[in-house]
Amino acid sequence: MSAPFDLWMKDVQARMEAALLRHLPPDQQIPVRLHEAMHYAVLDGGKRVRPLLVHAAGALFDAPQAELERAGAAIEMIHAYSLVHDDMPCMDDDALRRGKPTVHVQYDEAMALLVGDALQSQAFDVLAHGDLLPAQQLAMVRLLAQASGSLGMCGGQAIDLASVGLTLSLQQLEQMHQLKTGALLRAAVLLGAMAGKQLDEEETAALDAYAVAIGLAFQVVDDILDATADSATLGKTAGKDAADNKPTYVSILGLAQSQALAQTLRSDAHRALEPFGDKARRLREIADLIVQRKA
Amino acid sequence: MSAPFDLWMKDVQARMEAALLRHLPPDQQIPVRLHEAMHYAVLDGGKRVRPLLVHAAGALFDAPQAELERAGAAIEMIHAYSLVHDDMPCMDDDALRRGKPTVHVQYDEAMALLVGDALQSQAFDVLAHGDLLPAQQLAMVRLLAQASGSLGMCGGQAIDLASVGLTLSLQQLEQMHQLKTGALLRAAVLLGAMAGKQLDEEETAALDAYAVAIGLAFQVVDDILDATADSATLGKTAGKDAADNKPTYVSILGLAQSQALAQTLRSDAHRALEPFGDKARRLREIADLIVQRKA
Repeated sequence: MSAPFDLWMKDVQARMEAALLRHLPPDQQIPVRLHEAMHYAVLDGGKRVRPLLVHAAGALFDAPQAELERAGAAIEMIHAYSLVHDDMPCMDDDALRRGKPTVHVQYDEAMALLVGDALQSQAFDVLAHGDLLPAQQLAMVRLLAQASGSLGMCGGQAIDLASVGLTLSLQQLEQMHQLKTGALLRAAVLLGAMAGKQLDEEETAALDAYAVAIGLAFQVVDDILDATADSATLGKTAGKDAADNKPTYVSILGLAQSQALAQTLRSDAHRALEPFGDKARRLREIADLIVQRKA
Repeated sequence: MSAPFDLWMKDVQARMEAALLRHLPPDQQIPVRLHEAMHYAVLDGGKRVRPLLVHAAGALFDAPQAELERAGAAIEMIHAYSLVHDDMPCMDDDALRRGKPTVHVQYDEAMALLVGDALQSQAFDVLAHGDLLPAQQLAMVRLLAQASGSLGMCGGQAIDLASVGLTLSLQQLEQMHQLKTGALLRAAVLLGAMAGKQLDEEETAALDAYAVAIGLAFQVVDDILDATADSATLGKTAGKDAADNKPTYVSILGLAQSQALAQTLRSDAHRALEPFGDKARRLREIADLIVQRKA
């Protein structure tokens, strides 16, 4: 009845590319160089995992398409800004991202700083312009702000920076990733669902459990790929974690146990979705994609 | 009847210090170092010009105190984040701010980057938690996001960076400052008024005219002080503009004409407030403060 996953995914990705372009200021607008660099940082790149999650979760409650594209654009702008800042010399100092020179290499460091800052503002501007009930739209802004800030993504990055060269326990590593990557993935799932209805406690708890499982799976697989794939396949510099002496799942658990953990987390994700029945099909398929991806 | 300006100002500043502390995550909360650095960047510093504007504009329509403190805290967090990022080596490379070492000197560059990013998220989180009508609160989020982003403050910084070493016309210089400093000052005025009522077109236009005048006055006086005061008085490095070969009002108009311009802008600000009568007293006094300040 419904389309195969890869067709659905390509359709969402194409609509998101258009939505991102629509929700960014035009690149001819003054200041032109800043807007060009914002386009460079956001457009034509990435698998759009977070917008895919927004759309997949929106399908649970038949959320309006335009509002899913809006929420997807907002969260992708937050994600893109975090990559631009993460890649800067004072952070990970990475020259390659999605197969292209990073923003501070293509432009300069000051521009990378401003691009990230402006993308964060733009994300909140986009989300606050939605057409849902104002109370619901405001709840979505709060969710995105919390997931982005010092108790979410930025907090995870701070813990990550502080942990370079340290021996983390598995629990500490999970805590760090729950903030650094997990918070935004969780926000994507909840934003999509909230665009369809006001969530009750059980729905929120089930989606939380799903988000925690795929968030950790995402990171475990990232660590596996960083240890096993090459830079050309990844579109970014491979082997950075070991070179930077960063704690990873592979360095703590070894490769085989990390692969087993990824499969366990995939089962956890599927189990969390049981209350939603067939409407959760896309969310299940994304959990599979996250565990099976090769880049 | 009402308190002298300096008492009113000290009262608002004291209440804002408490409000900022209340609206930041506690500095004992994990990640502790990030939260400590956020407190370092925001608390115990500055004249709180933007929160003063929020409160002064709130007085026009008897806005609730708690909502003015909330909006004031949000806009001050945006301002504080912009200072932290502006001071970084890839931007202005400044070691001193408000008489203290800048964040990247006191901590490190990566922490300065994260502090700024997290403060921006926190600002939107704080503003989106207000108790006004959801539609009004959402309009305030939109206003702050637009004032902060590539068509506001960040855009002004991009133009500023691109103009180092160039000969700007007076008009180009004004355009740059209207974005770089003016957008956030305008947002402060409008947020305060919006916390009291939904503004009609005439009210918005009058407040816009006031905000444009004080925004330019603020910058003209900044340039005058940079050229004439010493670092100890300013609490930041004086003479930077000339050293950095940045275009300023003083470099284009000369000192005497810049001082005359500041007085003209002060009169413009007063004239714009005429429709509001006595309720605009604090806004008038702030215009005076901006032009007469010595640091």
